[in-house]
Amino acid sequence: NISSAQSLATSGPAGDYLRFSGLLDLGIGQVINKSAAGIKGTVNEVHQAGSGGSVLDWMGRENLGGGMYSGFFLETSVQTDTGGIGSPPPGPYFNRTSAVYLGNQWGELALGQVRAPTYSNLVFHDPMFNNGYNGGMKLVSALGTKVNSLYQNINSINYFLPPGAGGGFYGHVQGTLGEGQPNQKYFGWNFGYASGPVDVGVARGTTQTTPGNPNYVMTNVGGSYDFGVLKLIGFYVNSKYGAASQNVYLAGMTFPIGVNQVKLTYSRGLYSGGILDGARANAAGVQVIHFLSKRVGIYGNLARVNNSGAAAFRLPTPQNTSSTLGGSSTGFDAGFRLAF
Amino acid sequence: NISSAQSLATSGPAGDYLRFSGLLDLGIGQVINKSAAGIKGTVNEVHQAGSGGSVLDWMGRENLGGGMYSGFFLETSVQTDTGGIGSPPPGPYFNRTSAVYLGNQWGELALGQVRAPTYSNLVFHDPMFNNGYNGGMKLVSALGTKVNSLYQNINSINYFLPPGAGGGFYGHVQGTLGEGQPNQKYFGWNFGYASGPVDVGVARGTTQTTPGNPNYVMTNVGGSYDFGVLKLIGFYVNSKYGAASQNVYLAGMTFPIGVNQVKLTYSRGLYSGGILDGARANAAGVQVIHFLSKRVGIYGNLARVNNSGAAAFRLPTPQNTSSTLGGSSTGFDAGFRLAF
Amino acid sequence: NISSAQSLATSGPAGDYLRFSGLLDLGIGQVINKSAAGIKGTVNEVHQAGSGGSVLDWMGRENLGGGMYSGFFLETSVQTDTGGIGSPPPGPYFNRTSAVYLGNQWGELALGQVRAPTYSNLVFHDPMFNNGYNGGMKLVSALGTKVNSLYQNINSINYFLPPGAGGGFYGHVQGTLGEGQPNQKYFGWNFGYASGPVDVGVARGTTQTTPGNPNYVMTNVGGSYDFGVLKLIGFYVNSKYGAASQNVYLAGMTFPIGVNQVKLTYSRGLYSGGILDGARANAAGVQVIHFLSKRVGIYGNLARVNNSGAAAFRLPTPQNTSSTLGGSSTGFDAGFRLAF
Repeated sequence: NISSAQSLATSGPAGDYLRFSGLLDLGIGQVINKSAAGIKGTVNEVHQAGSGGSVLDWMGRENLGGGMYSGFFLETSVQTDTGGIGSPPPGPYFNRTSAVYLGNQWGELALGQVRAPTYSNLVFHDPMFNNGYNGGMKLVSALGTKVNSLYQNINSINYFLPPGAGGGFYGHVQGTLGEGQPNQKYFGWNFGYASGPVDVGVARGTTQTTPGNPNYVMTNVGGSYDFGVLKLIGFYVNSKYGAASQNVYLAGMTFPIGVNQVKLTYSRGLYSGGILDGARANAAGVQVIHFLSKRVGIYGNLARVNNSGAAAFRLPTPQNTSSTLGGSSTGFDAGFRLAF
Repeated sequence: NISSAQSLATSGPAGDYLRFSGLLDLGIGQVINKSAAGIKGTVNEVHQAGSGGSVLDWMGRENLGGGMYSGFFLETSVQTDTGGIGSPPPGPYFNRTSAVYLGNQWGELALGQVRAPTYSNLVFHDPMFNNGYNGGMKLVSALGTKVNSLYQNINSINYFLPPGAGGGFYGHVQGTLGEGQPNQKYFGWNFGYASGPVDVGVARGTTQTTPGNPNYVMTNVGGSYDFGVLKLIGFYVNSKYGAASQNVYLAGMTFPIGVNQVKLTYSRGLYSGGILDGARANAAGVQVIHFLSKRVGIYGNLARVNNSGAAAFRLPTPQNTSSTLGGSSTGFDAGFRLAF
Repeated sequence: NISSAQSLATSGPAGDYLRFSGLLDLGIGQVINKSAAGIKGTVNEVHQAGSGGSVLDWMGRENLGGGMYSGFFLETSVQTDTGGIGSPPPGPYFNRTSAVYLGNQWGELALGQVRAPTYSNLVFHDPMFNNGYNGGMKLVSALGTKVNSLYQNINSINYFLPPGAGGGFYGHVQGTLGEGQPNQKYFGWNFGYASGPVDVGVARGTTQTTPGNPNYVMTNVGGSYDFGVLKLIGFYVNSKYGAASQNVYLAGMTFPIGVNQVKLTYSRGLYSGGILDGARANAAGVQVIHFLSKRVGIYGNLARVNNSGAAAFRLPTPQNTSSTLGGSSTGFDAGFRLAF
């Protein structure tokens, strides 16, 4: 398993290609939010990404000879439940990836909108790949800032180590120039080792916030170990923004039962300083996917977040905005997903 | 002719596929609006859907064995005259259909944005398929509400009877959960029979409006009979919103003259209660399509709407917003259409 | 070289086809703006079109027999650096071209959004095809109007002479109906001759501005001569808006050095009357492209604009909006481009 080593080129098949692909997921769910003050809000919803992130991809690649290659990768999220695409205007259309790359045996250079190195450990070492109610990022806070670097960065300059460098080492360094916008100047890196059953990585990234305010600094480690049947997965992330800081731990596992895949996740967040001083939260959940084919699956999730103190985390749905301050958020869903 | 029986799966070809297709239509037209008070407004325009609705489609399907299948259907309208796509922001990009489905011999389950069951009779039993100046929906009113259910519903849960169930019976049941938004909670169904020359259906749908106000309830029937050369087509629709109600009748026919197809339509609307109390309107028109190939055609339309009382219906173009209160709207166009 | 003779049909391959293609370009650049008053602004940026315009194209064509054909052409620009597409809402998605066409030996009729005839000489007779810091349009002003006709027109009706008419003559006539919007009613034409090494054209276009104000009238000529190794390219454009007028001259050349292509450009603008009375500006630059394959290239640009009087032209980037009034704008970049 070398998924966390993926450069843009290795995200697609080898050789020359031009292709359109995607994953579409739709489910029916219920989310119940409760605050410590007794406010309760329940929403039933059709939603878009209970198990797999709904995306459309356009990718191409050309081998230039002598080990050199070039390609592009355009990816957008799809709100399959309503027909929306990308981020709401004025956000971009290709809101996940928009990049052109050029590589050879010395590595790969990519420009454009690319996954932040500090996101890789958090998505590839989450059993849910940060999708749906059980997605692992829901306890990770921007600590009151409006930094745009938690997932991907626009206008970025990227260097990836060549695949399989040094027998399994991988690396990704990313910088953005800021271009006069606050919350968008970022520098970060991710280095790791993936070989056989093991995949471990460490990453660090710094984002400038608004003028006169401190940087948002994230450090994280992630790892997976595949025992053949059972796979253990986890990450730890620390962020600091001036006096505010967070420590979030996630542990998970995946294992098969027949043609079903079972995924378990547990995470815990501890916050100090700033708007979340003394807050605590934990999240736990299970997902089962029943595969009807290699590309089509039916799934169900159970998920819960518990908050204490100033914590108000909740299951990720834009529909239920009812308060969970010091309370809980509980949800379940069932749906199906189709890759093509 | 079983077009009104289409589930999402039967909208595309059989077997496994991934495809991009569409229909693009552009024409030049003139619309003259006159009000009873003597106001007259004339607009010449290039427009987008004189005969066929300009759309782009992305569809895929995989057979899962044992009669089970899964697929997706993404469809957006295209404003070919200006280059726009979907609904204007914040409306969705895939503004016609955005759905994933799973089916077997017991029927088909689909989630996402899907045609409302109450729209099927009005589009499939209109000789113009509700496109252009002669489209059949122009006398159908939302009766002063802002319900979003006249054409399709987002966040919907759908069940379709399997194709050919019981020797020609078809059915579609749809519900939406509302998700905290007004005008979007809907439940409706359409059942019918299509076999040989006959296709008849009946549908009913209820949409919640804003809190404290009555539901918008639509009931309709539609049918077609194909005499081999001549095809007769028609629908009747009744809607109620508290004291307001409408009854709209449409009758039409299609027949060939050589390689040309001729389409005639006549409709009449009677309104009582509410903002349209005592209003009357009728619409009539003709369309001729000259096919240059199976996929390419040249067309022309003549269309007219006559209003009396509080009726202010007009030919569907966003360019001519001049009043037709108690007056008329007249238009003609010529254009071409290309399917791919 | 008959590029400036392109109708919509001849923009794609011959025969029946349906295809998706594009060109994606990303570079890193710096732009330094200085005003005569001593204000200086420097921006470093990742940008989208240093050498080739980043676009996505969807095109299709069907031969109908007897020399008749029909097709469509949808083109959008891509902000590859951020993931944006088309024009910012409410601008269109297919912001370059959205058209359906029908042609035979007598010519080609096209409706929709199509390149203005008055733009053809300015883009096809610019060695940079109006892309990047060295793009030739940066000294061409709308003279204080908000006319939308400098590049392409929506809602347009177009006639193209058939390719190769009269042994090399080409022509394009375009009109728009305005449709009640200011700055959008246009009539223009472009006629020329392209055969062997020579390609020359002349164009004129008139755009209605806001009610009560004069028309914006543009006249231009452009030409290229290919000496085999060296190609000379240039245009002259005059625009008038009431008392305001501009005269812009551009001269350029392209030649190879090994697998590299070198492009030189020099332009000069003289303005009188209106907001730019007495203003002068010139622009010069060089671009080198090193081709790694037929479709992939690495490039670099050096570019400069000098202003005097009321001129405040600058290198085209939305990031550096620092004043260049009576001053200069200097930039350089390096990047890569990939066609597919």
